Amino acid sequence: MQNLLILGAGRSASSLISYWCSNAEAYQVFITVADPQLELAQSKVNGCTLAKAISFNVENKEETAQLIADADLVISMLPAHLHLIVAEHCLERNRNLLTASYASNEIKALHSKAIDKGIIIMMECGLDPGLDHMSALRIIHHLKAKNASITSFKSYCGGLVAPESDTNPWHYKFSWNPRNVILAGQGTARYLDQNMLKYIPYPQLFLRTEKFEIPHVGVWEGYANRDSLSYIQLYGLETCQTFVRGTLRGEGYCEAWAQLIKLGLTDDSFTIDITNGVTWLELIKSFLPVNKPSLTIEQQLADYLKIDIHSALFQQLIWLDILSDQPLVLANASPAQHLQHLLEQKWKLEETDKDMIVMVHEFEYQLDGQQKKLLSSLKSIGDDQVYTAMAKTVGLPLAIASKMILKGEIQKTGVILPLTADIYEPILNELANLGIAFEEHHIE
Amino acid sequence: MQNLLILGAGRSASSLISYWCSNAEAYQVFITVADPQLELAQSKVNGCTLAKAISFNVENKEETAQLIADADLVISMLPAHLHLIVAEHCLERNRNLLTASYASNEIKALHSKAIDKGIIIMMECGLDPGLDHMSALRIIHHLKAKNASITSFKSYCGGLVAPESDTNPWHYKFSWNPRNVILAGQGTARYLDQNMLKYIPYPQLFLRTEKFEIPHVGVWEGYANRDSLSYIQLYGLETCQTFVRGTLRGEGYCEAWAQLIKLGLTDDSFTIDITNGVTWLELIKSFLPVNKPSLTIEQQLADYLKIDIHSALFQQLIWLDILSDQPLVLANASPAQHLQHLLEQKWKLEETDKDMIVMVHEFEYQLDGQQKKLLSSLKSIGDDQVYTAMAKTVGLPLAIASKMILKGEIQKTGVILPLTADIYEPILNELANLGIAFEEHHIE
Repeated sequence: MQNLLILGAGRSASSLISYWCSNAEAYQVFITVADPQLELAQSKVNGCTLAKAISFNVENKEETAQLIADADLVISMLPAHLHLIVAEHCLERNRNLLTASYASNEIKALHSKAIDKGIIIMMECGLDPGLDHMSALRIIHHLKAKNASITSFKSYCGGLVAPESDTNPWHYKFSWNPRNVILAGQGTARYLDQNMLKYIPYPQLFLRTEKFEIPHVGVWEGYANRDSLSYIQLYGLETCQTFVRGTLRGEGYCEAWAQLIKLGLTDDSFTIDITNGVTWLELIKSFLPVNKPSLTIEQQLADYLKIDIHSALFQQLIWLDILSDQPLVLANASPAQHLQHLLEQKWKLEETDKDMIVMVHEFEYQLDGQQKKLLSSLKSIGDDQVYTAMAKTVGLPLAIASKMILKGEIQKTGVILPLTADIYEPILNELANLGIAFEEHHIE
Repeated sequence: MQNLLILGAGRSASSLISYWCSNAEAYQVFITVADPQLELAQSKVNGCTLAKAISFNVENKEETAQLIADADLVISMLPAHLHLIVAEHCLERNRNLLTASYASNEIKALHSKAIDKGIIIMMECGLDPGLDHMSALRIIHHLKAKNASITSFKSYCGGLVAPESDTNPWHYKFSWNPRNVILAGQGTARYLDQNMLKYIPYPQLFLRTEKFEIPHVGVWEGYANRDSLSYIQLYGLETCQTFVRGTLRGEGYCEAWAQLIKLGLTDDSFTIDITNGVTWLELIKSFLPVNKPSLTIEQQLADYLKIDIHSALFQQLIWLDILSDQPLVLANASPAQHLQHLLEQKWKLEETDKDMIVMVHEFEYQLDGQQKKLLSSLKSIGDDQVYTAMAKTVGLPLAIASKMILKGEIQKTGVILPLTADIYEPILNELANLGIAFEEHHIE
């Protein structure tokens, strides 16, 4: 019997653990789920005979070393900055490691050491990064095999709310780390458009969006991710003229979010003194130019943002209650933190709500002298609050990859990503059987 | 004979050193000017009998300790982050220290140690900070003594180009660290307006300016500095309803600068790959949305910025040659660094050019039941490229303060600022004799 150690039993580990609870006996694998919160780990392995839950603190070096020594494979679902510590333990004990996080430069630097030790450190094997690479590369390799010349590649993914649970004008609820949503896009986005580098500074990012009409999935808008350029080489698309990766949101979200940025509410660089009490209305007034008592506050806000007070856009902002007498409650918090606190109430995924993942790749290519367009899309809807679409699409690729590593089906060693057919084909095929399947549409 | 050590012989030290070369004999003070560039230090003490120039490296601890041990007073004109090292040497050897830089929290933390040692660490004794505090507080204390109630205080200062040397549509040339000019205002500015806190995020900062018509000085525009709020208490203006400190620029500068910000040219967070050659035109195209070959690049730029192609504003941008075929030349540089490199050519203070300092304080106050307004302003024009207005207004307050410390005329110890009449009155009076005098205008 082999031992699989899963570090971290949080939100996105549910489907991973559930997969293993279902398959442990068939594959003769014993699962240890370790989390700082023992009860959380216990709740996830409940009823599974070949699994145990333990309490765990990554800062306890001896305990961590022993846990890793006892495992054949470690899956780290810990916060990304902790992967390096885990990776160093794995190198020390010659144990394989798997994560759903970006391969940082520090992790990449372990490549030759991992080869020397004969171990696998597989990164970017969740949803985004992970499933995005795998599903895109399957098509890229397929098109290249047909001698097609890919001229344009656009890839967008969003963690959204399912249509049946979409009850607000932003068409959004949190299914992921809210802080990342609030701070998204700060800096300058970079991508390639018709052989020309394009930069979008933060204040314009949510105004320069792209619309996708996806059959069976609906209409979505995307804003560019911070750095698309580094993926061109990874995907072998050096001759592609357009290459952009981004994030999907519902219609209207981005334009309204751009207003919050313009106001200054996403600033995370200074804190607001609330000792004498500050309401949301007062905070918004602080971001407006001189007070004009002859106008309503609504009119002042609309004038400043140069939007129509009767527009859906303005109503979308007002729906957030940013002009209410509700007090700010966080001490020493930035505008971004106050905004997050407000949105965590307004955009809460309720008990009976379901989340949704949408991913879309749009290819333009030339084949046999003809210009073609291909849309590949994924829609995944969560089962409930535990087995969310996010948990399934992050956890199941990891689950299948971990099974492959344990069965010795991945021959490579070193720091690797799921970029080759030997890895992505079995994963994508099994995912399809589990209901996570891409649809392809050829557009003439 | 007393010993004065001046660390740093750069641009802003010229007038300070010249003052001491003129007064060394009268006050029986020997001056040592220490700089990493010996020739620079030598050029500044040329012909002065009671002075010597030496080469100096602050990282050589023993040498620095010995130099400081030999001095009665140290003036640090080094980059601000080095003051702490110098201050620690001064504490070690019981030597007084004087600088023109902001009192950082690290420096402030030395207050009680400095009192224990009986030494003076006087900070913020140059132009801005320095002369701004002194000139404002003289008026504040005067008004308070008359039982006036100050309701509004606005204080702006700019390092500008003298009218006779103003030859470009930006009305600006560099007389100070260009990098600080390029990165100015990043973050969110905070000030008090009619008892209401106001925040201005960076993209709006240069669009929300204030105009000052100053008799004998002309019309200038100001944008708010990052944090005005911390000065309210320092100035004893807790009951003031409006309090803002800012930076002055010529008419039109700010609106045009806001366009460069909107484009993204002041971004310092990523670098541009120039290995295959990139021109300014290509860089600007990278910041524009999709290419529209049917329009000229000028029209595309004007459309994107939503400004009239025939406007003075647009011509001001074009004057920078940002649409030229001139190549970017700095390897691994950010947009902000490339912009700085360009502007260093376009906004160069030429050999025969003169710089200018303008400072203005606008007070509104109630006295004997009447609402009054007072404008206090300073205009200082440089003599030449060495004795610039910047060098004079930064260096002469330091020079006079250093004389007072050496003569034992400042009784306080600890980390102090020139905020009290015993310090600012003699400095302002002697400055007036040296031609640096404020003009007051009562506006009914």
